[in-house]
Amino acid sequence: MPIAEHKNVLLAHGGGGKLMHQLLKKIIFPSFHNRYLEQQHDGAVIDINGSRIAFTTDSYVVSPLFFPGGDIGKLAVYGTVNDLAMCGARPRWISLATIIEEGLPMETLSKVVESIKEAAAITGVEIVTGDTKVVDKGKGDGIFINTAGIGIIEKPVNINPQNVCDGDNVIINGDVGRHGMAIMSVREGLEFESTITSDCAPLSHTVMNLIENDVKIHCLRDLTRGGLASGLNEIASASNNQIEIDETLIPISDEVKGACEILGLDPLYVANEGRMVIFVPPSDTDKALEVIKRDENSKSAAIIGKVKKSDQPIVLRKNSIGITRILDMLSGEQLPRIC
Amino acid sequence: MPIAEHKNVLLAHGGGGKLMHQLLKKIIFPSFHNRYLEQQHDGAVIDINGSRIAFTTDSYVVSPLFFPGGDIGKLAVYGTVNDLAMCGARPRWISLATIIEEGLPMETLSKVVESIKEAAAITGVEIVTGDTKVVDKGKGDGIFINTAGIGIIEKPVNINPQNVCDGDNVIINGDVGRHGMAIMSVREGLEFESTITSDCAPLSHTVMNLIENDVKIHCLRDLTRGGLASGLNEIASASNNQIEIDETLIPISDEVKGACEILGLDPLYVANEGRMVIFVPPSDTDKALEVIKRDENSKSAAIIGKVKKSDQPIVLRKNSIGITRILDMLSGEQLPRIC
Repeated sequence: MPIAEHKNVLLAHGGGGKLMHQLLKKIIFPSFHNRYLEQQHDGAVIDINGSRIAFTTDSYVVSPLFFPGGDIGKLAVYGTVNDLAMCGARPRWISLATIIEEGLPMETLSKVVESIKEAAAITGVEIVTGDTKVVDKGKGDGIFINTAGIGIIEKPVNINPQNVCDGDNVIINGDVGRHGMAIMSVREGLEFESTITSDCAPLSHTVMNLIENDVKIHCLRDLTRGGLASGLNEIASASNNQIEIDETLIPISDEVKGACEILGLDPLYVANEGRMVIFVPPSDTDKALEVIKRDENSKSAAIIGKVKKSDQPIVLRKNSIGITRILDMLSGEQLPRIC
Repeated sequence: MPIAEHKNVLLAHGGGGKLMHQLLKKIIFPSFHNRYLEQQHDGAVIDINGSRIAFTTDSYVVSPLFFPGGDIGKLAVYGTVNDLAMCGARPRWISLATIIEEGLPMETLSKVVESIKEAAAITGVEIVTGDTKVVDKGKGDGIFINTAGIGIIEKPVNINPQNVCDGDNVIINGDVGRHGMAIMSVREGLEFESTITSDCAPLSHTVMNLIENDVKIHCLRDLTRGGLASGLNEIASASNNQIEIDETLIPISDEVKGACEILGLDPLYVANEGRMVIFVPPSDTDKALEVIKRDENSKSAAIIGKVKKSDQPIVLRKNSIGITRILDMLSGEQLPRIC
């Protein structure tokens, strides 16, 4: 087992790729197996006296705290809101826990809080409980934020990785790779012709629209650490299917394409913070696409591939000259502390 | 405003005392005022189609990770479980988010996870969702944990700081100051005649017993950062009452008393992780005490004071020679990273 080769935790264990999944499988899951974790979903769906809620959490350790298109506060709200939306839930209540490094300017804290307030207003969630910890200088990095969220699943939908099946179309709601490249450009001081801004955005409005329009959704997955490639691999593995995507159909902006070429990165592995894949049966694909495109953030939504029955849970990518190769999960660490 | 004098966040802003409350009042609450936060409760009580749940969160940054009587894993489960119990809720589902510093030995991580597993089993909660982040060496400190929790309020109880009223008795469920002194002794390498072990323990069983025995509880508060003094001040302030306690009635072990004397600390400000105050009307005090004492952890429970109507929300302490002084909230930082 590769993980046994690592006596200590590596940065790559937090990268959303292979090592992270091994860490979870080897150390975390064996201690906590239950029907919620087994679903390999973005959140737990819990029945409370006949009402279904979704419950999820994420910590945010992004560096730098402010970047083109967003900041840690926005990420902390949208990230958790999006995970609730991926369960088909309307996000409602959020907890806010901060771990502040001694010496953080009050002004920075205020700016982050202001950003959280705005993001909460946009997504209609309330910050209802919280916690504040301070650690000594050199034992943190400015501010880390954890949010947990509760949403309500209002309609009798069943959105779940296990539902993905033969024939499902894979829709993506827009161009990939912007968040990762935005962070990388500020962190490494790279200058491109035009600034790449993060795609950081809430997905809940789009998901609620899909549900209200009775679009049959089999599964949703937002594409954060590890990018599109890792998200698709997670779904292939959880549903035990083959997913085949056509590279030429994936929207990627020229700026991201160019920056990735210069840096030798594959945009399919670069992190996003406002992108998701939607798995829908052929009957509901056109309607889904139409509803998704109503959102300003999702105008370039496109069908990028298809699910096929298979005895091997793999993801295949077909390139522009028709050659098909395996698209594996991210291995190693592309860019630490992206979110 | 004293907070305006601080341009940067100090360790004391995380201490659970005056500076932390000023930080919350000045920077956090103005952005997020809503009826949940206004209650100044240990968690938010939310109505979901007629079912009442409690929702809470805490981050754990204790140093060292392992200490006599507990470790960060135990704290992370019991701390959140206890906050749910303080709302009168039966703890059910917990999220687990870790921020790991690169280089943490896998063995340490496994030990923490094992401890979380045990604590979850003891308290009957399930870890249903989670997140793992890794930060670069020197930007964290081993491991920080955040847990959020959901509990169900099964009976029509109303346990809330606002309910505390004239005549209520104040019960404490055992001796104070053990957690803080246990951490301090290992951190500072102090050696006392006998090892002081943390009181780290779940309070949910005791609270459920009180509720099942129909004891009328006005309010509960667990006594963590800032100790008994800060907990009582929070309740005095939230309920706008005077609380008068008799110092001679507060159980304190000889070890803690001795260690506090040597170090010049007041045990009423030292942190606890398995202690709470229970506010009950005189009619229910005997029954409450009897039920609380059934718990092995709460054999030394005692009535320590009384609530009095007042136009000033203050806490008074009467000492052994009958002199009464104000017992203020912790000011400054007694011991950072206690939990």
